[in-house]
Amino acid sequence: MDQTAFLAGFTIMSLGSLAIYATGKKTHPSGHHTLLHASVPFIAATAYLAMAFGIGTLIKPDGSAIYLARYVDWSITTPILLASVVLAAFHERGRTGEVGGYLTSIIVLDVLMIVTGLISSLAGAPVVKWVWFGWSCVAFVGVLYLLWGPLKALATSRGKALGDAYTKNVSFLTVVWFLYPIVFAVGPEGLKIITDSASVWAILVMDVVAKVVYAFYAASNLDKALTQHDEARDSFQ
Amino acid sequence: MDQTAFLAGFTIMSLGSLAIYATGKKTHPSGHHTLLHASVPFIAATAYLAMAFGIGTLIKPDGSAIYLARYVDWSITTPILLASVVLAAFHERGRTGEVGGYLTSIIVLDVLMIVTGLISSLAGAPVVKWVWFGWSCVAFVGVLYLLWGPLKALATSRGKALGDAYTKNVSFLTVVWFLYPIVFAVGPEGLKIITDSASVWAILVMDVVAKVVYAFYAASNLDKALTQHDEARDSFQ
Amino acid sequence: MDQTAFLAGFTIMSLGSLAIYATGKKTHPSGHHTLLHASVPFIAATAYLAMAFGIGTLIKPDGSAIYLARYVDWSITTPILLASVVLAAFHERGRTGEVGGYLTSIIVLDVLMIVTGLISSLAGAPVVKWVWFGWSCVAFVGVLYLLWGPLKALATSRGKALGDAYTKNVSFLTVVWFLYPIVFAVGPEGLKIITDSASVWAILVMDVVAKVVYAFYAASNLDKALTQHDEARDSFQ
Repeated sequence: MDQTAFLAGFTIMSLGSLAIYATGKKTHPSGHHTLLHASVPFIAATAYLAMAFGIGTLIKPDGSAIYLARYVDWSITTPILLASVVLAAFHERGRTGEVGGYLTSIIVLDVLMIVTGLISSLAGAPVVKWVWFGWSCVAFVGVLYLLWGPLKALATSRGKALGDAYTKNVSFLTVVWFLYPIVFAVGPEGLKIITDSASVWAILVMDVVAKVVYAFYAASNLDKALTQHDEARDSFQ
Repeated sequence: MDQTAFLAGFTIMSLGSLAIYATGKKTHPSGHHTLLHASVPFIAATAYLAMAFGIGTLIKPDGSAIYLARYVDWSITTPILLASVVLAAFHERGRTGEVGGYLTSIIVLDVLMIVTGLISSLAGAPVVKWVWFGWSCVAFVGVLYLLWGPLKALATSRGKALGDAYTKNVSFLTVVWFLYPIVFAVGPEGLKIITDSASVWAILVMDVVAKVVYAFYAASNLDKALTQHDEARDSFQ
Repeated sequence: MDQTAFLAGFTIMSLGSLAIYATGKKTHPSGHHTLLHASVPFIAATAYLAMAFGIGTLIKPDGSAIYLARYVDWSITTPILLASVVLAAFHERGRTGEVGGYLTSIIVLDVLMIVTGLISSLAGAPVVKWVWFGWSCVAFVGVLYLLWGPLKALATSRGKALGDAYTKNVSFLTVVWFLYPIVFAVGPEGLKIITDSASVWAILVMDVVAKVVYAFYAASNLDKALTQHDEARDSFQ
């Protein structure tokens, strides 16, 4: 039952948010990553609560459901995850303007990716659906280009520890995020190869991995790397 | 008449915005607080103008009104007020990432508090209404925790002057903000103990106190404290 | 045909975004302006694609069209253009709080200008339409005041090179942005002196000038001025 998935999502996400905050570092140099990563599943918990009550759920003429709460969730949580990645790449050396330039451009591409995905899911005519799916993929390519091009170069220029942590975290996100357009394409929004219920459970697992599991994985990489980075810098001075 | 309240709100808020800017400090160290505090009632003036024209006003089957303009107003103005508080706690020492971490997490909780309050006000069934009211209160507790826990510790670590100003401002906001869920709970959105009109006037008074009176109170505390803080730092060097 | 205009807009804006990024400086001191300016036409391209498919297009009882996609586009792209201008005024010397104060207040005024413009365009009764048009103009005056008052003073205090570049860019934006309320007032949303189709083509030309032509013009001014500014500072130390 979908209802079970939504309540499971609400429970896992709220406890996940608390656990990320409770076990995370609170102080410099990685305290702000804890705050960002703990915010993410709190938003997702609220979205799952909305889906459990059918709030923001549209039923299409063919009987399949579109959950607007998901798209609202994603358009806020993915920018926060990207912000943490961008801040790690710039660790301690970012000028306000430069960090702002990367944050703005990557978040613009990311939010457009999600909004155009929503338009695709709402579209009736196949040509409209797949044009918007394609434009959403163009925006996704833009996000990946910034993550793996200029931002990776920035992170690796800061030493091996920081560069490795950045690469591990971005690899994790890239793999998980790639699953979303695939599930979208084969699910009720696209080719209808898998059922609504299978899609709900698949996205629940992906959401937990991308928001809760990732937070612990990212913290273990960042805590070590940022501390090493700051020690190396201090001993050098 | 509600119309009178809305036009009074528009007038007080627009003049309040001008007065806050005209009388506020324009330069460092408190010029940016003037800009933030002057923006807040300008947004509220626009929301009151919308309510005066019935724009964004929904009439529920029981005849009570829900003013969407309020929720849009609050979801932008309260983050700005919180941003001013967070910036004061970090005064002159905030790294981009750390300030961003606190801003993001407190604004996420705050906006979720308001959006879930809106869902609660729109809900028909009492169980739905009170579950969402409860979740909104959870988010409010999160906001209060950040304000009175880690952010207060940050502010007081910066010396007595800054710590005292921070505590005064946050006390003011905490008391006024506590009134909103109470008026919501007893008003037409909740237990219907007070009338629609009484709720409109009560919220008008609270809005003026939280947005205009607060701006003058906060400025008088911050101007003094930030100047003292910077003088103490300069004489120490 | 409007459809031709929308597809032309999509094509010019997507190629413009690519061209701005491909030809722009990637590194300090003007790399972040490239990122901001390349984001702007990518958003506009998406809005023109939506208009080409009729997504977010409302037909009013009198047969004229309101394109919601435009207002969404403008409420994100104009803040990004303003952010670039504010960051130039503060170049290299902005404290997080101060930059944040100016960014917040100018973006609040700017977004309110656009949202109240949308309300005006949706209004049926002339008195409602022109009250909201008037309030939108008040917000526009606020934006112009900040650009030409305190922010210009900041930019010129940083030396002749930066002050001149700031003034050129803001002059360009001011002239182009002034055309929008005029086209709005004489177009189908206002006095209906020009046709829907004439309005669509006029706004297409203005959008291309304000987003693509401006990006190249601004880059040529900023690249030179920021480099001169940093060299002057370095030789002074």
